[in-house]
Amino acid sequence: MDNLRIDGDRLWESLMELARIGATEKGGVCRLALTDLDKEGRDLFIRWCEEAGCTVSVDRVGNIFARRPGLDENLPPVMTGSHLDSQPTGGKFDGAYGVLAGLEVLRALNDAGLETDAPVEVVAWTNEEGSRFSPPMMGSGAFAKVFDESYILERPDNVTGETVGGELKRIGYDGAQDVGGRDVGAYFEAHIEQGPILEDAEKMIGVVTGAQGQRWYEVFVTGQEAHAGPTPMPLRRDALVASARMIDAVNKVGHDHLPNACATCGFVEVKPNSRNTIPGEVFFTVDLRHPSDEVLANMDAAFRKRCQKIAAELNVELRIEDFWHFPATPFDDACIDAVRAGVERGGYKAMDIVSGAGHDAVYLARVAPAGMIFIPCEGGISHNEIENATREDCAAGAQVLLNAIVARANRQTA
Amino acid sequence: MDNLRIDGDRLWESLMELARIGATEKGGVCRLALTDLDKEGRDLFIRWCEEAGCTVSVDRVGNIFARRPGLDENLPPVMTGSHLDSQPTGGKFDGAYGVLAGLEVLRALNDAGLETDAPVEVVAWTNEEGSRFSPPMMGSGAFAKVFDESYILERPDNVTGETVGGELKRIGYDGAQDVGGRDVGAYFEAHIEQGPILEDAEKMIGVVTGAQGQRWYEVFVTGQEAHAGPTPMPLRRDALVASARMIDAVNKVGHDHLPNACATCGFVEVKPNSRNTIPGEVFFTVDLRHPSDEVLANMDAAFRKRCQKIAAELNVELRIEDFWHFPATPFDDACIDAVRAGVERGGYKAMDIVSGAGHDAVYLARVAPAGMIFIPCEGGISHNEIENATREDCAAGAQVLLNAIVARANRQTA
Repeated sequence: MDNLRIDGDRLWESLMELARIGATEKGGVCRLALTDLDKEGRDLFIRWCEEAGCTVSVDRVGNIFARRPGLDENLPPVMTGSHLDSQPTGGKFDGAYGVLAGLEVLRALNDAGLETDAPVEVVAWTNEEGSRFSPPMMGSGAFAKVFDESYILERPDNVTGETVGGELKRIGYDGAQDVGGRDVGAYFEAHIEQGPILEDAEKMIGVVTGAQGQRWYEVFVTGQEAHAGPTPMPLRRDALVASARMIDAVNKVGHDHLPNACATCGFVEVKPNSRNTIPGEVFFTVDLRHPSDEVLANMDAAFRKRCQKIAAELNVELRIEDFWHFPATPFDDACIDAVRAGVERGGYKAMDIVSGAGHDAVYLARVAPAGMIFIPCEGGISHNEIENATREDCAAGAQVLLNAIVARANRQTA
Repeated sequence: MDNLRIDGDRLWESLMELARIGATEKGGVCRLALTDLDKEGRDLFIRWCEEAGCTVSVDRVGNIFARRPGLDENLPPVMTGSHLDSQPTGGKFDGAYGVLAGLEVLRALNDAGLETDAPVEVVAWTNEEGSRFSPPMMGSGAFAKVFDESYILERPDNVTGETVGGELKRIGYDGAQDVGGRDVGAYFEAHIEQGPILEDAEKMIGVVTGAQGQRWYEVFVTGQEAHAGPTPMPLRRDALVASARMIDAVNKVGHDHLPNACATCGFVEVKPNSRNTIPGEVFFTVDLRHPSDEVLANMDAAFRKRCQKIAAELNVELRIEDFWHFPATPFDDACIDAVRAGVERGGYKAMDIVSGAGHDAVYLARVAPAGMIFIPCEGGISHNEIENATREDCAAGAQVLLNAIVARANRQTA
């Protein structure tokens, strides 16, 4: 297997060519799911896969599967992939890297003339980002039967109301293949880390051992709207001051459960939001994450207790609603080992890491043995037009992916 | 002067009749400055003034002056008034009460057949609220030469861009009279308190000794936008957590300078305001008030120091901009005494109070001896459709206003 090398320059050139579709002035990418630009990206990916000798199929929610046959077509395929859609002000690597690293694996297998026992499939999952259509991780979620197919097809564009089903048809990606329901031998996904841990630790590869559990909340704080001048401080029921203390408390809940906890308030809406009116209502969101469901439950309890205490002290009403919950997802031991072995074979500096973000692999883990490979991104910055990764790290991640896929697809001979 | 009584029922009926112009479903009023509804309110006020035998004139910024002649027309007039425009979801009393209490004074003088030495003028100032056009207290500010007339006439509608000058012309209130520049013997303004102090103390009248100084700021906090999942807590530069602590600190600055201090953050804008993104930028406003400029300066220093400390601790950038500053305005001793004497004559339960809000009287105080009379409003609630005041309190305030005006207009004989 020593001649089995991915071509880092070829991978990089493909990344840069794909990034021209939806390129933004600041060097990023805007390629929202099921737009004309998404279609253009999909078409290019399919052309490249067909040039690499693959058979391409599309399922009814638009997931694209490029299949390289195995010596034994009865074996379930080893799959790899990610997504081609981007955030509105996204970067060149989030998603696209995982898909094109998979393509590069196919090309490298062809170069080496290596046939694998099991087939290898590279997948582009529909609408991972969830920017244009909710929920995110739509295609992989439908494949893993987390979502009903009909529910997905009816999802509306957040702004215009066009549906996923209608837009799939419009761009010609309303495929004929059944959604999921077939065996997958293993799933590997390569992705930029979207955080600063690998860069800080000076590692090229993150061996992803699982994904954090997530609890999302919506918090409604109600006080009494009043004129900022004539209302004495002791008589106020200021919903913003209460919310500010709660936001600070959420942050403290995160710090109290380090090293692996994350606690974030990302969205705030203040009413009436007027300079000289004491806010009567505040709405904000809370996002708690931890790789252990048990610790996450402790964080949940601490968050509720602190907010209730603040609400009582400041005489405001508090309503906390559970918005979304996602249990901690440990990846498959054998897949993690395959990634680790692939790292050792390549001689890369690596470390174990837990994914803080959701990825298609997290849904795939529900129906198949799954694992992920992270590479560093500059400054830990993602979902941003300045998102960046190095040619060298992209190559390293793809090489580890290749090693892991071959080992898994040739499991009986590995 | 014992037969000199205002008619509380007549005042109440006029208030209710005016409140039908722009009435909202929830019992409030939406009568934005220089709209067709404002014109309708102005027309009704002028009709009533003319029926009361006044001469009405309008100046070039649309301020309306209804003059009841004095025995000595060479004496400068004693003025009273307020404004007829409202907030978008305003109430029946804010502004309208002061104008119609003035009208009731004229009617009561007529009923009693009393001629005053100095003329009495009731004024409706243009655009006190500042909702449709900035800045607020526009007409009184122009009269007091705080604003240039040409600057005011060019001010655009916040949404559509129509100008004050254009709208004055459109509704026929682009008067011919010079703006200000003439002597005013004294100015009194009756107004609802817009706060809960009088109601809490069970007083019918507030003898307003002055208006709080105000300092308004715009605060810009910049951290680093990042993905909420994969970004470890210790590496974050969370602009929202920093801002939350600053908003709490502003509140503490208010509490540290009680009894008279007010400190409010009313407006918050978070970017990118997305559930799973650590906020990179927050903008919020700060409103500090105190009746002493010296204490206000201390509050200013404490606010800056605390915010700078928080910014340093959380590694975010902080920019504080002075947005508006309004020095503490003590009212004229003789005018305060005239109000106090009017209270005693009426036998009302009263207390001294400092105005927390800006009022036309605050600008008038720059060019004339000025004073104000507050009456309670239900629950201290104003700038709200449920704003309410009692018939009895409205009558009491108007009676005090009548007493003060007569005393002042007949100063040599009082």
